[in-house]
Amino acid sequence: MTEEPSKLALFTDLYELTMLQAYFEEEMTQEAVFSLFVRRLPPQRNFLLACGLDTVLNYLENLSFSDDDLAYLASLGKFSKRFLNWLRDFRFTGDVYAVSEGTPIFTNEPLLEIVAPLPQAQLVETYVMNQIHLQTLLASKAQRVVTAAQGRLVVDFGARRMHGIDAALKGSRAFYIAGVKATSNMLAGKNFGIPVMGTMAHSYIQAHADEAAAFAAFTQLYPDTVLLVDTYDTLAGVRKVIALAKTLGEDFQVKAVRLDSGDLLTLARESRQLLDEAGLEQVSIFASGGLDEYTIAKLVSANAPINGFGVGTNMGVSNDVPALDIAYKLCEYAGQARLKLSPGKSILPGRKQIFRLTENNQAVKDIIARFDENLPGRPLLVPVMHRGKRLVAGRVELEAIREYAQQQIAPLPSHVRAISQASPPYPVQISSELSLLQKKIKEQVAIN
Amino acid sequence: MTEEPSKLALFTDLYELTMLQAYFEEEMTQEAVFSLFVRRLPPQRNFLLACGLDTVLNYLENLSFSDDDLAYLASLGKFSKRFLNWLRDFRFTGDVYAVSEGTPIFTNEPLLEIVAPLPQAQLVETYVMNQIHLQTLLASKAQRVVTAAQGRLVVDFGARRMHGIDAALKGSRAFYIAGVKATSNMLAGKNFGIPVMGTMAHSYIQAHADEAAAFAAFTQLYPDTVLLVDTYDTLAGVRKVIALAKTLGEDFQVKAVRLDSGDLLTLARESRQLLDEAGLEQVSIFASGGLDEYTIAKLVSANAPINGFGVGTNMGVSNDVPALDIAYKLCEYAGQARLKLSPGKSILPGRKQIFRLTENNQAVKDIIARFDENLPGRPLLVPVMHRGKRLVAGRVELEAIREYAQQQIAPLPSHVRAISQASPPYPVQISSELSLLQKKIKEQVAIN
Repeated sequence: MTEEPSKLALFTDLYELTMLQAYFEEEMTQEAVFSLFVRRLPPQRNFLLACGLDTVLNYLENLSFSDDDLAYLASLGKFSKRFLNWLRDFRFTGDVYAVSEGTPIFTNEPLLEIVAPLPQAQLVETYVMNQIHLQTLLASKAQRVVTAAQGRLVVDFGARRMHGIDAALKGSRAFYIAGVKATSNMLAGKNFGIPVMGTMAHSYIQAHADEAAAFAAFTQLYPDTVLLVDTYDTLAGVRKVIALAKTLGEDFQVKAVRLDSGDLLTLARESRQLLDEAGLEQVSIFASGGLDEYTIAKLVSANAPINGFGVGTNMGVSNDVPALDIAYKLCEYAGQARLKLSPGKSILPGRKQIFRLTENNQAVKDIIARFDENLPGRPLLVPVMHRGKRLVAGRVELEAIREYAQQQIAPLPSHVRAISQASPPYPVQISSELSLLQKKIKEQVAIN
Repeated sequence: MTEEPSKLALFTDLYELTMLQAYFEEEMTQEAVFSLFVRRLPPQRNFLLACGLDTVLNYLENLSFSDDDLAYLASLGKFSKRFLNWLRDFRFTGDVYAVSEGTPIFTNEPLLEIVAPLPQAQLVETYVMNQIHLQTLLASKAQRVVTAAQGRLVVDFGARRMHGIDAALKGSRAFYIAGVKATSNMLAGKNFGIPVMGTMAHSYIQAHADEAAAFAAFTQLYPDTVLLVDTYDTLAGVRKVIALAKTLGEDFQVKAVRLDSGDLLTLARESRQLLDEAGLEQVSIFASGGLDEYTIAKLVSANAPINGFGVGTNMGVSNDVPALDIAYKLCEYAGQARLKLSPGKSILPGRKQIFRLTENNQAVKDIIARFDENLPGRPLLVPVMHRGKRLVAGRVELEAIREYAQQQIAPLPSHVRAISQASPPYPVQISSELSLLQKKIKEQVAIN
């Protein structure tokens, strides 16, 4: 990580702190339950892949205000000395229930629920939302790209146009969880142990007197490299690779050529033919340049002779869905279930559980229930933090998360795993007990 | 900042480092020029607002590899000891020419050009692109939101759904430069000195026994606050504010009510009427919830009685254009102009300058020229770093940048400043000398 979790206490909205001071003054510090969920899936997403829990737990474990932070708050003239003194000792001491990273989730299903004294559960809203949103958004997008590639290599090339350093780092991890094989991002490789991959840039070719000289120099240093062939003319570039193979004979070990522009389907076919005619069947073709799940699906269904894809910006910013309608809402306070009635923004009250029902190893439906109901199916929300300390279920190795994600995606119905819109969508029901509670609370609110 | 610039040397793509080792082995360390530009503007952007230079210069001044970084690189088995030793002393010692932050720029215009030994100019590609892309993207979006609001207050509420911590922090700064008045993001307030603003959340209302009690408690602590009225029923919420005003009499100082859902135009009109009938003309109306420049423009043109807008996700992720076609390309090496010919991805060769021509204080056209041409108009690229050290022009206070941006936007033709697509687009020409050079280099490349 580049950011220190202990320096993030002020990564919060002003209103969280003004509300905190009000809770402090009103002595409203009883237990609250906040639920984090996505209000509705966009039509381009049949499910989301939960991601970001590790970051959030790390933040909750380390949350505290520095002297610097408190001095800044004091300078605003909005906060009392008593309140700022209380903030000095502020720690997160609550419990967290969450679905494991790599779990497919659907509309209204809580990704996590925080059970903590009201001020604590309130303050963390901004950071918790920011990180779960980012990482779930990017894992969900990458999962579609991997699906479209149907087993072909997918490498993350997104760092240069993703939204900032944090997005690029957390994104590389989210992509890896979703099944992407490697990243070009060295800091992500170092921080998370993700495999790193790369080829060469046009600038390397351009800086040499000619393309053939550049290919020769690069392969001398990196015999089993990937050569970028589109700087001047893709097929002429491929012919120079073939000429190099003739010159080098048995020393020629180039793994692949990379196409980065133009009509990738036609160029891949023509390049494949040239390479095959030259007896270079072992040289594979790697493609990049504006790819996403839709363009990859087209190439794959046209049997493009492409062995791997470098996917950058479109995956990196989740171009078709750059944000999710994620919300973090109070659903219980002081033992009383709560909701709101704003149009299009309603809440399922109280602590909840998700049950996923399977038949013959296929997921058939989810039921969102009250947390203490005992329904058939696997409960997805598990305790990951207790009294501010991580539990074992909240500390999972990256490789295990990646494997778990594949295990959880596989049982989904095939039309839900597809990149086209699922019709019908995966069924998610509300249990009758939860419906009853929602009705009861609505009536209570209406009376007020 | 949360990230330490000295810890970002590995925020680069693997291929930058493999190319660096090749340059090192081939002794290709002569001076290179790389140009950062946007290949084409999307139809939803008539211009871009350059942003991010300060971050980039800070990075260049502090760039170095730690022992940790070098140990990680050694562990990959791709890099020689000689090369890693050379990396240990790696510093950026080049020059940077850039347009000032807050300058409107157009297709193909360099936002910056880096003149440095080839390995240095190459390595920094990933970080430089990432930051200029992010900040220019977000400043450009925010400028449109501010334009649409026609002088009404715009506040940044984006932190919770922007792409990570870095995007939210740098974004708040970019928004402020573009004319946004304040942010809800406390860490951005602390780091950059941006004014902070906030209201209250639904959770505060929900946690109280009823809405009226919540309003009373909050105004007791914050008499001149903004009350959120849509938790249960917007107009009923407004009536409770009016009742509170009657109870408090002269002590009632509430500044505004906030609408956050539903049909904002109708609700604003009805709320305004209720407030006015109660003699509360001084209570203004603040709106939020899924806003962007398009919805704000509609509300403003319908004369919605809304005095300010809280804008979050759509501005924060630049929802209609979540990425720009930005490129960082070698255009000169060892005194020779360079280009590439990949379809749709061509380059203007050599070092360049942009001249902006004005007539009667209105910008009429730009000319992209060779850097040593002397054309009419103001040259936009200025030296901001020399031999790795910032120059005065590279160290500008945030308030000055914000003011400069307004001064530079004002002279653009009104149809270019509008949020609808400019037809014709702002004219950008290539000078005849630069065209000639491009033609000459193309011919040279074709001969190879």
